[in-house]
Amino acid sequence: MSSFVKSIDNLINEFKKLPGIGPKSAKRIVYYLLKQSPRDIERFSQSMLDMSTKIRFCSICFNISEDEICQICNDGSRDDKKICIVEEVSEVSIIESTGEYRGLYHVLGNLLSPIDNIGPEEIRIPGLLERIRNSDIEEVIIALNPTVEGESTATFIKKILKPLQIRVTRLASGLPVGGAIEYADEITLGRALSGRKEF
Amino acid sequence: MSSFVKSIDNLINEFKKLPGIGPKSAKRIVYYLLKQSPRDIERFSQSMLDMSTKIRFCSICFNISEDEICQICNDGSRDDKKICIVEEVSEVSIIESTGEYRGLYHVLGNLLSPIDNIGPEEIRIPGLLERIRNSDIEEVIIALNPTVEGESTATFIKKILKPLQIRVTRLASGLPVGGAIEYADEITLGRALSGRKEF
Repeated sequence: MSSFVKSIDNLINEFKKLPGIGPKSAKRIVYYLLKQSPRDIERFSQSMLDMSTKIRFCSICFNISEDEICQICNDGSRDDKKICIVEEVSEVSIIESTGEYRGLYHVLGNLLSPIDNIGPEEIRIPGLLERIRNSDIEEVIIALNPTVEGESTATFIKKILKPLQIRVTRLASGLPVGGAIEYADEITLGRALSGRKEF
Repeated sequence: MSSFVKSIDNLINEFKKLPGIGPKSAKRIVYYLLKQSPRDIERFSQSMLDMSTKIRFCSICFNISEDEICQICNDGSRDDKKICIVEEVSEVSIIESTGEYRGLYHVLGNLLSPIDNIGPEEIRIPGLLERIRNSDIEEVIIALNPTVEGESTATFIKKILKPLQIRVTRLASGLPVGGAIEYADEITLGRALSGRKEF
């Protein structure tokens, strides 16, 4: 269902690639944008470029940041004796939104997957160990999805942290089995945090 | 549910404004974009600007176009004795996708609405009359939504075209293909009956 206008079709194709947007939604969005002022479109377009050029990863926890060190690592009021391990940067803000956690984070960026050649280096384990050795961490909270890769990554981290004799906990079950952290509501996730168990 | 990073939140806000995209979808899309290459983001951003700067309205039919005259008006192989009247530019490509129509279009851009001060000028009626007077139009097909404004705009166009003695038709109303009589509303079913065809 082409619009017969190249610049429209190009933009529809870009929107179609986004998660959760099919051809009909993409078209609807582009026709909506057509009615917006050039200034609005320019601002949208510029926001996209800004995000792409300004965002980098925090050199401590690998959360997203516009600075060398992210806002959370930089916040002196946070509990720097706890590290919460998540897979994706998007999960940091979801956990923050529960209001149940005031510690630090470590974003793995991936889960262990020998078949895809994703080993400990690729999930930033050396950085995690260095952080723990160089500071006063008392507890590592594992907040990984309850999937096969999530479980085996959790088990690996538990094993590698054993010699360091710190408390290793994980989110309480409360997450629906087979579900994803991304889709959990804030209360469920908050309860899963406050009810975390020894691992 | 802020991400605590300004450029991310800005972009989430832009996506949230789009039709059919809520806060969670907007966030999901932005975190998806974060994983794309800077080149991909730049292309997306540029497509948006391109659309905004290159698109204008065809000076004949008010369809969208990158040129003074749109591809449909410019296509000599089309039936230039028929004009199909639609409200929105997006409806042109929907009608095109049926493959049932090879004539020209006239995009009103609005429907008559005296309460909002939208009169004949605002729905490009003078342009329509000029087109009809200056060419060999034999049929005007009214393809407006069957709403109160759509109906009254259709009636107005019919009345204004009467002195010109051309055929004025409208889209058939009836049961949607694949629909059930049980679920059709009374007005639709009534029109399906009164507009029944030989079988």
